[in-house]
Order: sequence, then structure tokens, then C-alpha cells
Amino acid sequence: MLMAAVCMALLGCLQAQELQGHVSVILLGATGDLARKYLWQGLFQLYLEEAGKSHSFRFHGTALTSTKQGQEVIAKVLESLSCPRDTAPGRCAELKAQFQQLSEYRRLKTPEDYLALSEDIEARVQREGLQEAGRIFYFSVPPFAYAEIARSINSSCRPGPGAWLRVVLEKPFGRDHRSAQQLATELGSFFQEEEMYRVDHYLGKQVVAQILPFRDQNRKALDGLWSRHRVERVEIVMKETVDAEGRTSFYEEYGVIGDVLQNHLTEILMLVAMELPLNISSSEAVLGHKLQAFRALRGLQRGSAVVGQYQAYRGQVRRELQKPDSFHSLTPTFAGILVHIDNLRWEGVPFILMSGKALDERVGYVRILFKDQAYCAQSEKRWVPAQSHCLPQQIIFYIGHGELGGPAVLVSRNLFRPSLPSAGWKEVEGQPGLRLFGRPLSDYYAYSPVREQDAYSILISHIFHRRKDSFITMDNLLASWVFWTPLLDSLAHEVPRLYPGGAENGHLLDFEFSGSHLSFSQPPLEQLVPGLDSAPMPSDFQVLRAKYRDSPLISAWPEELIARLAGDIEAAAVQAVRRFGQFHLALSGGSSPVALFQQLATGHYGFPWAHTHLWLVDERCVPLWDPESNFQGLQAHLLQHVRVPHYNVHPMPVRRRQRLCAEEDQGAQAYAEEISTLVTNGSFDLVLLGMGTDGHTASLFPQSPVGLDGKQLVVLTTSPSGPHRRMSLSLPAINRARKVAVLVMGRMKREIAMLVSRVGREPKKWPISGVLPDSGQLVWYMDYDAFLG
Amino acid sequence: MLMAAVCMALLGCLQAQELQGHVSVILLGATGDLARKYLWQGLFQLYLEEAGKSHSFRFHGTALTSTKQGQEVIAKVLESLSCPRDTAPGRCAELKAQFQQLSEYRRLKTPEDYLALSEDIEARVQREGLQEAGRIFYFSVPPFAYAEIARSINSSCRPGPGAWLRVVLEKPFGRDHRSAQQLATELGSFFQEEEMYRVDHYLGKQVVAQILPFRDQNRKALDGLWSRHRVERVEIVMKETVDAEGRTSFYEEYGVIGDVLQNHLTEILMLVAMELPLNISSSEAVLGHKLQAFRALRGLQRGSAVVGQYQAYRGQVRRELQKPDSFHSLTPTFAGILVHIDNLRWEGVPFILMSGKALDERVGYVRILFKDQAYCAQSEKRWVPAQSHCLPQQIIFYIGHGELGGPAVLVSRNLFRPSLPSAGWKEVEGQPGLRLFGRPLSDYYAYSPVREQDAYSILISHIFHRRKDSFITMDNLLASWVFWTPLLDSLAHEVPRLYPGGAENGHLLDFEFSGSHLSFSQPPLEQLVPGLDSAPMPSDFQVLRAKYRDSPLISAWPEELIARLAGDIEAAAVQAVRRFGQFHLALSGGSSPVALFQQLATGHYGFPWAHTHLWLVDERCVPLWDPESNFQGLQAHLLQHVRVPHYNVHPMPVRRRQRLCAEEDQGAQAYAEEISTLVTNGSFDLVLLGMGTDGHTASLFPQSPVGLDGKQLVVLTTSPSGPHRRMSLSLPAINRARKVAVLVMGRMKREIAMLVSRVGREPKKWPISGVLPDSGQLVWYMDYDAFLG
Repeated sequence: MLMAAVCMALLGCLQAQELQGHVSVILLGATGDLARKYLWQGLFQLYLEEAGKSHSFRFHGTALTSTKQGQEVIAKVLESLSCPRDTAPGRCAELKAQFQQLSEYRRLKTPEDYLALSEDIEARVQREGLQEAGRIFYFSVPPFAYAEIARSINSSCRPGPGAWLRVVLEKPFGRDHRSAQQLATELGSFFQEEEMYRVDHYLGKQVVAQILPFRDQNRKALDGLWSRHRVERVEIVMKETVDAEGRTSFYEEYGVIGDVLQNHLTEILMLVAMELPLNISSSEAVLGHKLQAFRALRGLQRGSAVVGQYQAYRGQVRRELQKPDSFHSLTPTFAGILVHIDNLRWEGVPFILMSGKALDERVGYVRILFKDQAYCAQSEKRWVPAQSHCLPQQIIFYIGHGELGGPAVLVSRNLFRPSLPSAGWKEVEGQPGLRLFGRPLSDYYAYSPVREQDAYSILISHIFHRRKDSFITMDNLLASWVFWTPLLDSLAHEVPRLYPGGAENGHLLDFEFSGSHLSFSQPPLEQLVPGLDSAPMPSDFQVLRAKYRDSPLISAWPEELIARLAGDIEAAAVQAVRRFGQFHLALSGGSSPVALFQQLATGHYGFPWAHTHLWLVDERCVPLWDPESNFQGLQAHLLQHVRVPHYNVHPMPVRRRQRLCAEEDQGAQAYAEEISTLVTNGSFDLVLLGMGTDGHTASLFPQSPVGLDGKQLVVLTTSPSGPHRRMSLSLPAINRARKVAVLVMGRMKREIAMLVSRVGREPKKWPISGVLPDSGQLVWYMDYDAFLG
Repeated sequence: MLMAAVCMALLGCLQAQELQGHVSVILLGATGDLARKYLWQGLFQLYLEEAGKSHSFRFHGTALTSTKQGQEVIAKVLESLSCPRDTAPGRCAELKAQFQQLSEYRRLKTPEDYLALSEDIEARVQREGLQEAGRIFYFSVPPFAYAEIARSINSSCRPGPGAWLRVVLEKPFGRDHRSAQQLATELGSFFQEEEMYRVDHYLGKQVVAQILPFRDQNRKALDGLWSRHRVERVEIVMKETVDAEGRTSFYEEYGVIGDVLQNHLTEILMLVAMELPLNISSSEAVLGHKLQAFRALRGLQRGSAVVGQYQAYRGQVRRELQKPDSFHSLTPTFAGILVHIDNLRWEGVPFILMSGKALDERVGYVRILFKDQAYCAQSEKRWVPAQSHCLPQQIIFYIGHGELGGPAVLVSRNLFRPSLPSAGWKEVEGQPGLRLFGRPLSDYYAYSPVREQDAYSILISHIFHRRKDSFITMDNLLASWVFWTPLLDSLAHEVPRLYPGGAENGHLLDFEFSGSHLSFSQPPLEQLVPGLDSAPMPSDFQVLRAKYRDSPLISAWPEELIARLAGDIEAAAVQAVRRFGQFHLALSGGSSPVALFQQLATGHYGFPWAHTHLWLVDERCVPLWDPESNFQGLQAHLLQHVRVPHYNVHPMPVRRRQRLCAEEDQGAQAYAEEISTLVTNGSFDLVLLGMGTDGHTASLFPQSPVGLDGKQLVVLTTSPSGPHRRMSLSLPAINRARKVAVLVMGRMKREIAMLVSRVGREPKKWPISGVLPDSGQLVWYMDYDAFLG
């Protein structure tokens, strides 16, 4: 029998060893680019490694092409396969001949074709007296074809009972969360999750595959290093010199984020950031820890990204997709992203993800730069690289290309000597003059793989061995899309910065971060797409001072308005603390104050937080830990960042005896009593209010039977929108304040702002119109959108 | 008249201008080192600048030396004075002659001598028809002579009414807080604070004097830079190549900390860190802001410093001070200090102070290094220094010497172009090949003074002009000693690391920090002073597992014990959250838990804080904001560093209706109710206890009438030591817990630990003996000091 002969010839395996069954590999799209370049070679590799060990194989290349044409293409591909480096030429020819004999091309188009294939496999297995072990279907086809093929496989080409089915899918898996979910549902109706192998070929790259093992084998050295206490930043980068020419039909749909960041760079991010399972060979543990890390990712916002597009792209798109000259593609071909991970290990550490086409070099790497926590007593001239802790300390997973020209793991010599599997890795030889990341190569312990292996060969072997940890599970995929989709949405109408491409880019694409916000280091050169950005700019206006309802009005663009309000609050706080020793501030919930909270948390060093009492203007009748609670917003955006003593924080007691806002629990009365006890005369130093589109303020809604007058300081009210039950300061309580600030922002508020400017004091109709401090001051803060329209 | 002539000749002043009076300058110690090197020259400078402008002068050099000898020395000094650079030689001789005529030497020893001086001055003033403006006494004498001289001046040499007195004092001002306070009290009995000018000559150095003006003039550029958000670290450094030979009698008493850090480097630290007053020429505002910054300094501990001593010092001390060979000086000649400032501007930013003798170079500088918050999309090779934000961004106040050879202000060109007073400062000329702080000089905007001026000349002019902001006020001085004294105390018996001196030091003195802790980067070479460190080391012992009172005992050195306990608590938390969704932890106050809190706050990333409820085991009947409150310790050392939701923190309600622990306010009942509502069965997942030397635990003291049995979960008790009134969990409440951990540390606990190991369950006598969970687990955590003795 042929297989036995191969077994003898190739591996000297024991005659006694029984073959465990027959495996059919069906490569769909076998004549395509990816298949010709990588997949056939990967299958040949699999054959060389596994054939005769325990299984017999047969390889079916399929496509829509006619049999004759397909056979010709495949014959050529099979002829060009290469053997391992140390194989003698004669031996190589022999091995290739064996593989060619086991490989065939066939057209696979109709459900009947699939049925025929299945019958052929079964017939052959029976004929040769084999047992069928399983079938691998490798989808090297565009995603739009997935569903049809999946349906055909499921209905006509599943192996019989006892044999397994594995289908291998290539990204892209959708272009946002919705489409990914849809695709997942569709495929899920044909295959079990455990039957599907979603390929991210980066996970097959040798250095990427080494990240978890490296963390595992160097646990002891990394224990004190792998956290916010020591890591300065992490850079995850894939730069390309090529552009998207010839591929714009694909690229227009996915852009650099869908093409590279959502998948390759995100997977690497997870490998670096996830908690390390005790047993890294447990796929379940790895996946569990990965998903946990996904949950800790801080949501991306518009300000988390800078995007660019190389100048020639627009023309390429017009040409290749037959678009008119008026068509301006907004697809980014370059993106820099700032990711923060809100857990105790990584809080505050910037993870920078960057990728782009038409850049100055081709290179991929993960760089972990450690904090400089040393001081060297000697003059710099006398520092010895391997000893001086004042020189940079870094660990670099060099994925490939670039100045080093191949994959490597680098660890600064002043950090520690890493342990790598001695079998597969060797020290990199010196290359005089070569500098990497600011230091000569000789400053690093540097290891490269003894044998460079193609990612696809590795992944195909993993599919065969059912090593699912090298593949993307559905949970993993959807978690990634949950993370990326909001950013994609917010970028949909952004004009990317144009860049010339290559070394010409200069410093044009350099970017900087401050807090969570990213921006290009250089201001834009020119207005690139006229018309799109012609709205008036903040610098066109000064802060405007005027009157509104006979009280002072301050109007500006949002950023300046918030800065001004924050400054005014700080001034009031400083003055109150100086005069009375404390400052009582009552805050509203909602979205406008969030920016204010952030401003106060980061920009105001002189704020006397230790002497500030924080009160709530109103609260929803939900537990304080409910995301809808106003207190949650206060906690997330302010309390966690400043040092207000615990006992100076006064959430509204909406939940007592495990009930919410029950009249008989007297929560409103208790809050009123707390105010009376701590706040002199019940006069807050400052009350911050908002204004609803219906004219409500605090949680005092039009026609409210309580809270608009009378003696109660705190009342239970009902909101027209959910959650309906609320607790609120009353108008009389608000009007006792020394100062009341009303913050009104956004176009949505324009109409009500106009209306309220004209009406008298009619709190029943418009509660906001009842705000008029008895002896304090009222100031309106409105952005231009709300005020000018 | 002579003065008029000078006026005409020197400054062309108007005839009409009236002299505002006569000033006598009395230089005490006029023949000493400092006087000969700097002070006479400074007085000459003062004369050149001021004489005839508005005052007439006379200079009295005094000492204890005989008149003849003194006159000879002075004559020589006056002969060697130098004129401003551009004075013609003939003109210089003329000016020197005028100054010599106005200068005299006289012996000043007895009270009578002082009286005679005073009478001479008065007689001359009267004779020449002048008005006396004031007298300046410059103390260039050792501090032990201060009191006697001050007494004589005060009793016999004060000017008459209408004229001022200024006394100028040179450091050292004491050697710790106590002695500084004593000296201040002593001098305060003779002089008003406003009469005293305490010199720190660093404040006269041109670049140091420029720090505040630089911050003021570049407010706009620095606004976004000068805080923890952008500053990576600050280095304040003064390195010397000379050693202390010939000065060991002084040096033995003060060491490098008293000689350099407590004064020069601390003053610079304040100039960098203080909030910038609106008006920097207001001495009061500057001082006020300085004192505020002093208050924000985090206390120094033993771990905040590394100290060294150059090898030859010991022999020099023996020789110069006639000490036996067995004498081992512990005086540090090198110190590296890590300072943290706990305010919102600087929190977390390391300020590194370093100074030493016998180092490899002479240089002084302040270096502010900014965070790298940029990512450069181009390959490193293409970065342009002035544009790339990826290259280091720093501001350096180069005080002098070093490779630059003189004072300068440097600002990285990729940061901003600084504004400096154009009159006094010029751009530094290029020096090819010169690199400073990792970058070529050409990477900086670099400015140096047009005319280098000696610090003493500047300060003498400031004394004359009553510019007190260049001098150290008593408040300032004492604040500095309050800061340094605890460190000096804790270093008193430390053996400094020996270093060979000069370039030989290699990396021996390099140091590193982690959190607040500083240590040398290289492990010690050898046991340098045998005997002093022979106590057993932590590594000599393993964590010990045994039984104590029939329950598991874990014993170890403190650090390991705390690590172990923290690990056990985390494991309990993770398990509880997994099983029940929450973890209820009741914590004791006191000092032992502080280390535990810190360990939990920094080392435990997996701790499920968001699902942890924190309860108090006991509380003192003081407001929660009182420093004695147990809650304060919890807040300072744990709550501020982790994210426990506000509503999961449960302080004991010791204060209700503005009263403390009043029975009728039912605080204990309220806490019991809160426990019953939130904690299933009232069983805490973990209760952490301590043990007092009298056998008390929680706030349950021997013979307590309540809390040792019965149904109450929470009780009011009385402590034998103040504050006497307490609130405490009862023994029954404690014994309901799933797990109880008792932490016992320190030698003080040895006796009670021994005793309690032997007694039965007698809670009336020893409340701790009543701790025995009904169905939970009890574990004792004792350090070796407490357990092994």
C-alpha cells in the first residue's frame, strides 16, 4: 500500500503502528492567491510531518473554475512546493511526487458537486479498507461566499458518524459588531462552534505564538515587571510600505482598522495584557482570561484615534471602483489608537496600536518599554549598557521584517536574561551598527527561531492537532467587535489626514496623547476637503457674556464653557473654604456634567477637595450601583480621581431596607435632615443644574405636584421617562443656595432655551423658570449650539 | 566731602539728590575663609553699586584677632579685590582706594568692644552731619558663637531709634529640628524675625534665582507641562569631586544631608514644586506657597534614602579628630533621596535629590524630564530633533560646573522656545560634540547669564535692598527640619555603603526606586563593618507553619508574613465572590494593618474590590475625620488606592446627630442592622483582628461588661487608654465569621503571646482567648519577633 511505503520511506515508523484513520483536506478556493502562496505549502508541510505517523491523507483542491483550468493551475503550484532546507534534491522530488499523487483538483459549485465529493471520499475509504477520521474544509474564499458553501457542506458533505468535521475560516469576519454577529449566526446554523477554526494568521507567527510561552517561562523575572508599576507603555505596531492598489474593492470596505487592528493587533494586545493562566496550554483558561481582559478595556471614543489616508488612495479607488471625481473616500489607511485597560494591573498604562499602508518601512513589533526608575550617580559617559539601569529597559517581540529582517525576541541586557525553549531558538548574531529602539543590538539578549516557519504551516498543523487556542472563538471575535464598533461608527464621517506616503511622511503622522486623548503632533497643513469642516471654529469666538432671564449668561464653545464653569466652581470652593472651612456642592447627573467632572478631576490642582462636601441634586430610584444611577456617573468620573473623604460624600438614600424610594422609608426626609445638620441654613454654596427639553430641572418635571413650592427640601417625584421614580431637591431648597449654575449644552436644547428666555416665572409649566435664588446668584452657562442655534 | 566726590566720580548722580543716611556694615569673622573668598568682594560690589546713589557707607571688619594682625590680613584682602570686567586698571585702583578708606579692621570680643563700636559709629555720623540709616551685622563665624555675639549686639550695639538693624546668619542652622528650634529661640530673644537674614547662598546663584522668574515668564507654555500629568521625574543634584579632608570636624557633625540636602537642595525643590504665586515679587506670597508645599511633602522613611561614605573618610576623621582605629564614623558623604509630594499637582512624581563628595565630576543641576507621550510613525533614523516629540523633552536649570562649565538654562527644542529676560541672558554658543542628558547641546535652547555673578554679591545686594525672599525665614527653616529630622534619626545607626571615590565608583552608587522605596542597584560587595548587621536575615528563615492555641499558626519575618496574609485574604475574596458574588471583610485599625493595606493596595491585581464590602471591627468615638479614627487609616492606606464603590464601605456610625457614641443615638444598633441586612447570617467572610499587650482584641478589653457574650453584634465599650469610648464588634459577632485572622507583630507582643498560648478560654481576663469561630476557621499570623522572641 502506498501509505505504508511512505511511512517506511519517510519516517521509519514501526510496522506495528496502526493508522488511526483517513483525513480529507478540502481546500476551497485552491487556485486563489492565498492558496497558491501559502496554503498548498502548508498542506505539503502537514503531509511531511504527519503522514504515516498515525493517519492517511488526501488533499482536494477545489474552486469554481473548470476542471481542466484548475488542474493546470494546481499542477503548477504543486511543482513549485519547497522541501525543508536540509532535504537532498532527489529526496525532495520523491516527496513532492508522493504529495502530488495524493492531491487532486475538482470543481465544487453546486450542492451536487459536494455530494459527489462526499461519495467519492467514502468510496475510496471503503475501497482502501480505511476508517474515515475526519474532513477539514479550508475556506480560502471571499466572505460573501461563506453561507452558501457552509450550507452545502452541512447538507451534503459532512462525514459519517464517528468522524469529525473542521471548517477553517479566514477573516474578515464581518465589518462591525452587527455584521459579525449576523455572520456568526448564519454559520452557527450549519456548524457547531467547536467545528469552526477562525484563522488570524498572526497567531501563527512564531514570535506572536511565543508571547504566552515567554511570559510563562519567565514568570519569576516578569512578576515584578508586568504591570502599571513598571511598564511605561506598550506599542503594538504593524507598518507596511505597500499600498492598497489592486485591492481597493476589499480595502474600501474594511480600512486599516478592519484589516489589521480589529484582528491582528487586538489579538496581540490580549496576549500581552491578559492575566497569565497557570496552565497556558489550556485553551479554556486562555480564552477565559482573554475575555476578562476584553471586559477591562476602556471604551474607545473619537479622541482615542488619529487616522490618515495616503494621498494616492483616493485616485486608486476612483479608478478601480469606477467612482466619479467627486467621490471622496473617507477610508483610513493609517490609524494610531490609544487603548487603556481599566484594571489594577494596567490602569494608566498607554497601549499604542498603530498600523498603516504606504509608510516608510515594513515592520511589525510589540514593544514593552519599562519605566526608568533608576538614578545613576556617575556621569553618563561612564554608563555600561549591560549594567546601567539608567539606559532604556525593554522587551520587544519583533514579528518580522524591519531592520532586523526576521522574527526575534529582544530583552534589554540590563533587565534580565530571558529563558526561551533552547531547541527552537538561537541567539541572534551581531550586526555591527544596527540600532533598534534607540540602542545598539548588542544591548539586547536577542533570540531568533532556529528555523523560520510560515504562519500558515503552523496553523494548519494546529488545526490538525485541534489546538483551538491558536484560533479565534466566537466570543473572542464578538468581544473584539464590541470594542471596535463604537470607534468605527464615530469615525464614519471623519476626514482622515492625507499623507504623501513613504519617507515623505516626515513627522506628519506622529501623534501624542494626553489622558485618553490622541492627536497628531503637527497641526493640519491645509483644509484638505473643503466644505466638510467649514463650521465656525472655537477660535472664531470669544467667551460671550450677556444676560438671560435677567441673570448673567456665559456662552462659549463647549470646551471653553466647561473650562470656564470649572474655574468658577473652583473659585467658589476656594472662597467658601477660606471663609467657612468647607464647601457644599450639589451636583446634577446626566451627560453634560461628565465633561465638567473630568475637567475638575484633571485640571484643578488647587481645588480644596478635602474640605468639599458633595451632594446630589437628584437621583433615580435605582440602587446606587446601577449604571443608571446619577451617583455612578459621579463616582466614575469624579470621585475615583480626586480625594474627597468618604464621609463628605452624600449620595441620596434612594434605597433603604432593600426597597427603592418607598414613602414609608422616609429617604427624602433623611436626606433633608442630613442637609440641615451639615449645611448652614440649608444653603448650598453651589448648586449645579441642567435643563431638560421639556423645561424640567433637577428631577422636577412639569406639573409636578410636589417640590415646586412648600417647605420640603427633598421630594419624591415622577419622571415622564424611565426610570420614572426620582428623588430630587425641591425648588425652595435650590433657591436657598448661594449660587446656582445652570449648564445647558447641545442643539437639542435650542428650542427650549429660546422658549424659556421669553416666559415668566411659571414653574408648573417649566420648572426651570422657578429657579431664582432668594438671595444668591444665578448664572446660566450655555454653549453656542444651545444658545445661538 | 568724600562721599559727594565718589558720587560725582562714580555715578554722575545729581547734586540735588540727598543722601538718605549712613549705613554701617559690620563683617564678623572678617579674617576667615568665607570672608576672604567672597564676602569682602561682595561688600566692594555693594559699594560700587550703591555708594552715592542714596546712602553713605562704612565697612567694619571684625574678629577676635588682635588689631595689628587683623589689619594686616584685611589690608591684603582689600588689595586683592577685583573690579567689574570692563573697568580700566587706573580707575580700578582709584575705586579700590576709596573702598579701602571706608574700611577698617577692629577687634570685637567683649561687650565693651561692641559698645565702643556703637559709640564710634554714632560719633562719626554726628561729626559728618549724617543721619544713621542702619547697621548690617554679617555673622561669618561658627554657629556656637552666635548666641554670645547676638547678645552683645542686642545689648550694646543696636542703632538708635529710626535706624534699622539687619543681622545676616550663615548656615548651618542647627543639625536637627530640636537644635534648630533651640537656636531660633535663642536668636529670637535678641532679634526680631524681620531683622534676621538667614543665608542659603544657593538662593543667590543666578540659575537658582531664575527658577521662579522662569516659571513666571513662561506661565503659558508651562501651564500644561508643570504637573504629574506631564512630568516624568525631577532630579536635583549637586555632585562634588572634592572630599571632606581638612573639614571633618564640621562634616562629622552635619554629613551630606545637613551640609547640602536639608538646605540647598530642599530650597531648590521648593522653587520647582511650589504653586506659583500670581505675584512672584511678593515675599509673603512666595513664603506662603513654599510652606504649603512643605506641608504636602510625604514623610521620609528609612527606605527613602540610600547613603554612602567614601573610603578615605574614616581615616581622615581618625586623623583629624584624633579618634582611635576602632572608631567607625557612620556619617554619610553621599545620599540619594526620593521625595514624593502628596498634592494633586505632583502626586506620584519622583523627586530625586542627590549629593555627594568624592564623586566623578563636579556639577549641579535641576532636571525636569517630561513624560514621553508621543508615538512617531517614522523610523527612528528619520527623526528631526527639533520636531520629533519622541526624543526626550526636558528643562534643565544648570547651576554650574560640569561639562558645560557654567550656569545655564536649557529647554529641549521640541518643547517650546523659552522666554528669558533679554538683558541678562544670552544664547549659549555651540560646543561641537558636547552632549548633555542624553542629547547634543544643539537639541536645546540654551541661555547663560551675560555676566556671571557670585552668589554672595547678589545676596549682599538683596540684604541691602531688604529683599527677604532670597533668605530663609524661620518658618521655612523649621519646616525643612521637620521634614529631614525623622530621616536623620532613622539613619543614625545605619552603615553607609563605602565607595572608592571618583570614576572608580562605577555603578556602585546607582540607585533605583519602586513606590516610595529606594535601594542601591547593585547588591553590597561585602559585609563592611562586621558585627553591626549580624542579626538573622529574612532569607535565613522559611515561613513557619505550626499550631497556636490549637489553631493554625503562620510565622515569618514581617514582610513575608504580610505578603502571606495579603495573599490569603485575596484568595478568600476571590473564592467568596465566585461563590456568593460578594466578599465581606471586617478590618481592625492600628499600625500593623497599615503594611497589610499597602500590600493589598499595590500588589494584588486580582483582588475583586468592586465586589468587596469593607466593615470596621472597631472604632474610636471620634469623628471619622479625626486622625485617631481607625477609618482614617483605612482611608489613607487602602481606600485611596483601590476602587471600592462608595456604597460598599461601611464606617461605624460613631457620630450621629453631632454627638459621639451616645447610647440614645443607637449607633451600635444601626451598625448591627446594617450588618444583618447586607451580610448573610451576619457571617463576615473574613475578620481581621489584632491582639493588645493586655490581651484585648477588637475594642473588647479585659473585664468588659458587654460584648464578650450575649446577642448584641455591636457594642459600645470603654478602653483603658484614650480615646476611652469605643464601638466594637462583639465576640459573638466575630465568632460567626467564616474565617478569623489574628495578626500579631513586634517584640512588644512577645509576652502576651507567650501567656495567651497557655491559657484556656477566659475572655473576661483575656478577650482574645474568646475568639473561636463557631463553624469558621481561625488562623494566627505572628512575626518572629512576637512568636520566637
